[in-house]
Amino acid sequence: VVSCWSKLAEVVGNEYVLRDSSTLTRYARTTGFVQILPDAVVLPKCTHEVQSIVRIARENKLALYPISGGKNWGYGDAAPTQEHQIVIDLSRMNKIIEVNEESCYAVIEPGVTQGALATKLKLHHPTLWMDATGAGESCSIVGNFSDRGFGHTRYSDHYVSAAQLQVVLGTGEVIETGFGSYPNAHAAHTYKWGIGPILDGLFTQSNFGIITRLTVNLMPAPEDYCIYAFSIASDEDFAEALSVLSRLRLEGVIQSAVHIANDLRAISGKTRYPWEAMKGETPLRERVRQELARSFHVARWTGTGIITGNPLVIAALRSTLKKRLAKYNPKFIPKKILGSISLAKRVTQKIPRLASMSRYLELISMLADMLTGQPSNDALYGATWRVRDDKKGKGSYDPLDAGAGLAWISPILPATPKCLKEVLSFLPKIFEKHTFDFMATFTMINERSLVLVSNISFDQSRPEEVELAKTCYQEALDELFCRGYVPYRMDPKSSAKLTSHAPSFWKLVQNIKLAADPDHVISPGRYLAEDVASAGLIKMEKKGVK
Amino acid sequence: VVSCWSKLAEVVGNEYVLRDSSTLTRYARTTGFVQILPDAVVLPKCTHEVQSIVRIARENKLALYPISGGKNWGYGDAAPTQEHQIVIDLSRMNKIIEVNEESCYAVIEPGVTQGALATKLKLHHPTLWMDATGAGESCSIVGNFSDRGFGHTRYSDHYVSAAQLQVVLGTGEVIETGFGSYPNAHAAHTYKWGIGPILDGLFTQSNFGIITRLTVNLMPAPEDYCIYAFSIASDEDFAEALSVLSRLRLEGVIQSAVHIANDLRAISGKTRYPWEAMKGETPLRERVRQELARSFHVARWTGTGIITGNPLVIAALRSTLKKRLAKYNPKFIPKKILGSISLAKRVTQKIPRLASMSRYLELISMLADMLTGQPSNDALYGATWRVRDDKKGKGSYDPLDAGAGLAWISPILPATPKCLKEVLSFLPKIFEKHTFDFMATFTMINERSLVLVSNISFDQSRPEEVELAKTCYQEALDELFCRGYVPYRMDPKSSAKLTSHAPSFWKLVQNIKLAADPDHVISPGRYLAEDVASAGLIKMEKKGVK
Repeated sequence: VVSCWSKLAEVVGNEYVLRDSSTLTRYARTTGFVQILPDAVVLPKCTHEVQSIVRIARENKLALYPISGGKNWGYGDAAPTQEHQIVIDLSRMNKIIEVNEESCYAVIEPGVTQGALATKLKLHHPTLWMDATGAGESCSIVGNFSDRGFGHTRYSDHYVSAAQLQVVLGTGEVIETGFGSYPNAHAAHTYKWGIGPILDGLFTQSNFGIITRLTVNLMPAPEDYCIYAFSIASDEDFAEALSVLSRLRLEGVIQSAVHIANDLRAISGKTRYPWEAMKGETPLRERVRQELARSFHVARWTGTGIITGNPLVIAALRSTLKKRLAKYNPKFIPKKILGSISLAKRVTQKIPRLASMSRYLELISMLADMLTGQPSNDALYGATWRVRDDKKGKGSYDPLDAGAGLAWISPILPATPKCLKEVLSFLPKIFEKHTFDFMATFTMINERSLVLVSNISFDQSRPEEVELAKTCYQEALDELFCRGYVPYRMDPKSSAKLTSHAPSFWKLVQNIKLAADPDHVISPGRYLAEDVASAGLIKMEKKGVK
Repeated sequence: VVSCWSKLAEVVGNEYVLRDSSTLTRYARTTGFVQILPDAVVLPKCTHEVQSIVRIARENKLALYPISGGKNWGYGDAAPTQEHQIVIDLSRMNKIIEVNEESCYAVIEPGVTQGALATKLKLHHPTLWMDATGAGESCSIVGNFSDRGFGHTRYSDHYVSAAQLQVVLGTGEVIETGFGSYPNAHAAHTYKWGIGPILDGLFTQSNFGIITRLTVNLMPAPEDYCIYAFSIASDEDFAEALSVLSRLRLEGVIQSAVHIANDLRAISGKTRYPWEAMKGETPLRERVRQELARSFHVARWTGTGIITGNPLVIAALRSTLKKRLAKYNPKFIPKKILGSISLAKRVTQKIPRLASMSRYLELISMLADMLTGQPSNDALYGATWRVRDDKKGKGSYDPLDAGAGLAWISPILPATPKCLKEVLSFLPKIFEKHTFDFMATFTMINERSLVLVSNISFDQSRPEEVELAKTCYQEALDELFCRGYVPYRMDPKSSAKLTSHAPSFWKLVQNIKLAADPDHVISPGRYLAEDVASAGLIKMEKKGVK
């Protein structure tokens, strides 16, 4: 009998079936709470190989855990959801298949990172812009799409701003969504919905198939643009400001996904927890927090956004924002100024007494990158806020290298003052009760809702802190669910919470799973929790393979 | 044994189970080619009754054909897709459950028409605007959503501009999409995607469930607005103009769904085929067409759109459009002028020698309604273009009353000059070859695509013309598929074409059908053609019930 490993090696080549313990340990690393070792890591190079892998898995009752880039920091990382899964790492499938300047889109494979696409555009298609998340250059665009991530421009909703997937189902068959399955359909890349039921949304936040190709919308680089920032002094002011901001968004004056970050989120991108000033105690005291905020020139809440268009349109939108946001001290930085800021940043960096100014310029420069779709690694540094050993992982942006603990809690709330006030009335307290600092960004993710992205930052080298973080995470999520604030995304290992709160929804999801992946080959336990999955499957997983 | 009819009557009341032949004949009426009589018409008044009906259907192997308003003119009307189906008419479920002014949305039942919502907003929520299609006041909003219709404002994509469905599955269970299944989720109506796989798209253009409630996004009524129109003299100029328009749309200067109608589409809304001038011959000759166009002041192609916002923003966008569309004679009609036009229209109507002016003002006034989300019956008149008996159905806007033949052919194409030229090079010729006039609107339905809505207008009282129309319809669709222009929507009776062109896609759809409606209770044959549906089902349908 040929072993499964030989069969897989026949498909991808011996060197792409990895089973050595250092590889397995590397893929199991997590910024979260549970390390799960895969049984193997397999790296296919094309859709055809993915199909063959799925067929082998089906025949041999293997469970696969596909990852695009595997950088799902704070949401489960690259690690499988259960024991005895085989990680299918798609990072070798990294072709940018097409960049279309006329209709403004790119067709990419799952291994294509934000950095790779940005570089490609800069070098060969400077008339096109992409939207980037704060997850850095190494973040896979398909990976982010498949978890419905978001960015900063008017294309910030990555689910909406992509069209047409190619997917390998759990049966080994390939389908394309939208018009993609119609041979030579001209609009396959330009019209997302196709004809008949819309299937592409099924393959996000689920375990129905493996996405092997994606069409991503790009923007024409605007003739001109202007970034802006405004400051909100307190939580009370924030609620009041939100009613203005919501109207501006509903009216279409604000078109990008305005991000409103608290001081700690901004500061953590630039420095670590002030252990000395705090004499080793946690969480941060208000006085020290205020000092830090002053030295980094950040208000309690800072909102940021971008206006794009021709100079006339920009002037009109800018003047409207200036007037309506007057109470929040709006600052506008036009495109033409941003070049000189970058220069000033480099100059001030070299002059010690201008350190504070330099830090401010650095913040603006990081902001400008994000708002113009340039992936930047700067925000990743925030994950290390509570790591005590500042030599660990030096020179790497990867939070895993630094031993950072990171757990995202990201509920959606209607963009109303009432809901904002309620969330701010209880959530920071839960963080602080467990000794953690409430780092948070509220993003105007659509015209009617905010997503709150808060994170528990902790030190993986301190078992007692990890335990506290775990308790804090569970308590915060439970309280949010109980009060009706459901997250937009979760660590796929926490899926059981979802099923228990919405059984009718997840029962249908389970039935659809059977339609797309009848043998539960793909990511058992991911989003669709095991307690609704078939009993047969669970037994199979527990068994593992030889 | 209790008959099915008694069981159904127990649920909805005797008076809401209709089996008299005049009712059945009325529901079977069609603007298309095939009349199919339902076995009965049942009118439930709430979700609970719908569930009971589905359970009875499941137990008794009945096939249901749910309709919201049943006005799907030119796309199959209210008629079932197959023999022996029971029409479930949801028009009694016509509650506007909530209108939320803060977050700008309405929660409605399937029987709510465009006219009903517009009236409600006008009377009680004048700060809110809706988006309307050209399908008139009696068009159901849920019905239009479930076929992924579109309108004219920046909320023109009705699938995107709605959130959260309540659906009765073929099992009789109720689910809600997005966050709706989580008890007390605050963002249920404001965040469409929820968590986990996106299911709402499954219930559009399909037969997986019965939509019993929908959340529709509304816009804040803009502070100011300006409608605009531009003229394109020929097909060649249109291709050139499209490259300008596409850029304007991609850049975000154009945000509404600009509609570009040909002269015949505009004229047919106001008058019938000039039988006298044409001496009874068809299709329309170029010379007569030109005369008509002149008398109605319409160019070969007329584009229309709306700019909304505050006066500053409007001025900036208007000046940009004026410059970039200069070759196409753009005309702008600000909000403040529109009031006087309405007055002028009424005055000129009474003065015979101002008839031509009056017609022009009427066109503008109809346009203004559509562009500002006011449902209008005016466009419906276009369906009667070729009806010879102009007394039939007088006083009714319903094309069925007039005996109008109407078959939509609505392919999607990338918004590129090349594709536009190709479609215009062959499609009108197919119409004309079969003696029909090519009435067409190209709508910029998203930033990258056009939908061409063309229709064969014919006279149902002339069997030979109906036959010609049928041949023309098949030939046009076949040619479009063959050249890679797939429709965005179809008469659900024509679904077999879809399956044969994209078998892998439809195989998955078939498997999902089993997950949501295992006994094929709901709309067998709708979109999902019967040749891929289960053999058992088809036998059951043919049998009918007693």
